[in-house]
Amino acid sequence: MKFAAFCKYGRKGLAVEVEGGFRGLTEDEAGYPGDLLTLIRKGGDAVAQAGAALQAAPQIPLGSVALLPPISDPEKIICVGLNYRDHSAESGFEQPDFPTLFGRFNSSLIGHGAPIIRPLASAQLDYEGELVAVIGREARNVSEAEALDYVAGYSIFNDASIRDYQFKSPQWTAGKNFDDSGAFGPWFVTAGALPAGCLGLTLTTRLNGQVVQQAAIDDMVFSVAQLVAICSEFMTLKPGDVIVTGTPSGVGLARKPQLFMKDGDVCEVEITGIGLLSNPIRDEAATRLAKTA
Amino acid sequence: MKFAAFCKYGRKGLAVEVEGGFRGLTEDEAGYPGDLLTLIRKGGDAVAQAGAALQAAPQIPLGSVALLPPISDPEKIICVGLNYRDHSAESGFEQPDFPTLFGRFNSSLIGHGAPIIRPLASAQLDYEGELVAVIGREARNVSEAEALDYVAGYSIFNDASIRDYQFKSPQWTAGKNFDDSGAFGPWFVTAGALPAGCLGLTLTTRLNGQVVQQAAIDDMVFSVAQLVAICSEFMTLKPGDVIVTGTPSGVGLARKPQLFMKDGDVCEVEITGIGLLSNPIRDEAATRLAKTA
Repeated sequence: MKFAAFCKYGRKGLAVEVEGGFRGLTEDEAGYPGDLLTLIRKGGDAVAQAGAALQAAPQIPLGSVALLPPISDPEKIICVGLNYRDHSAESGFEQPDFPTLFGRFNSSLIGHGAPIIRPLASAQLDYEGELVAVIGREARNVSEAEALDYVAGYSIFNDASIRDYQFKSPQWTAGKNFDDSGAFGPWFVTAGALPAGCLGLTLTTRLNGQVVQQAAIDDMVFSVAQLVAICSEFMTLKPGDVIVTGTPSGVGLARKPQLFMKDGDVCEVEITGIGLLSNPIRDEAATRLAKTA
Repeated sequence: MKFAAFCKYGRKGLAVEVEGGFRGLTEDEAGYPGDLLTLIRKGGDAVAQAGAALQAAPQIPLGSVALLPPISDPEKIICVGLNYRDHSAESGFEQPDFPTLFGRFNSSLIGHGAPIIRPLASAQLDYEGELVAVIGREARNVSEAEALDYVAGYSIFNDASIRDYQFKSPQWTAGKNFDDSGAFGPWFVTAGALPAGCLGLTLTTRLNGQVVQQAAIDDMVFSVAQLVAICSEFMTLKPGDVIVTGTPSGVGLARKPQLFMKDGDVCEVEITGIGLLSNPIRDEAATRLAKTA
């Protein structure tokens, strides 16, 4: 089952994929089941029931609405660095034997189609295509063998990074938390509709149509199951928590010459079976001008 | 004005200090103004008005209620590392010329009096006494000169750290996010009741009554005003966001012999003019036994 969170005339809505398109409701309409985070937190069959009910809702032409991040305000966005060996190597880091974790704040999130902003403060805006796993049930000290039972579904992320800020101190937080730098979507795909742990899928990042990253999800150093199990070793994962599982090699920073994103570019992250997340790049200055125009 | 967030018979409440104690209301009582995050987000005089109104509320004997973190679910908990030169030196890090930022997730927060848990996974539980600044108004690209106008108030934090997990990878997130490791409180003190930026105040950490850290807030490498200004350079700070401003030297990891916290210890962090945050230490195993008893 494939869901889209959207905004239409200022109202949030939820849609589900049906043959030939999407059907859904906005929050002001009778039968609106709540947003995905609310449904995942309800537990049980709430997501599946909402999906079934929405199949009788009106059609939503997705081209005429704004897509939102599938989950806009999770308690945690846990990002994983150095989770593909060739990316660790190109970045000049030794491969750690424990996941490299950093946090994103919700204020950095945008949806499919919204511009990733190249800030006035830096020209080093880089792409990072990644698989997202969304937690479905509270998890504490779960084993790797049972970990995937705690995953509600999957999505796609462009963990756009401001490289000079990322390396201004030993911790990467600043370079990973610029406003409008974390693109998330377009869909939330329930785990049951995908292979276990997304094994067998392929991630591809394209900048202006050129492939810049491509990797098998199987190449992750720590699989989705391992990430869930290890994180649950030290903290309680909650329904709706988001794990952004790391990017493969090919980032702009490591290229010769370096390749950074600029106003007018379009960056796409595609994962087979899940979807294609596309975002234009806009200069902060251009955005400001547009807002005052 | 000094506020306490509390829980009484399972109901959340808010109290304000009056001569001789605290007066307040729980969420089920008429006149309850909402929690601090709600009030700060309302903006304007909402916090001050709530404080004034609560002065006519019933007395709350704080010894008979559980104190909660002043803000339990901020959008961001921005922690600052390496913000006192002598602590950077004792930790073996060069002093960066940009704030060292990492995130805490809300799932790690506890209030004054609640046990900090020494997990089964590690014996390296360390203390870090810190000043907290709470954002009062949305801030983006604010200057250092105007930054303190965006601070609603202050509190105290024990950024308890699991040292072996902190250094298992280049990013410190795991060691800073164990459940029940971030003690926050006891009070939220409005900025107007304290010197600007808390300059002139002294922070002291005691373990079982022995002073283990003591420093002037003025010794921070990046002042509260600078932290607000610099963070607002790359992200929008929102009302209720929490900045945990870093710890001075004296941590247990850097001592010879090393000094880690264990079941039965009591750790206190005091800042002159703000208050005293005290938490017992409990082994995870002991807690589990207690829960099943």
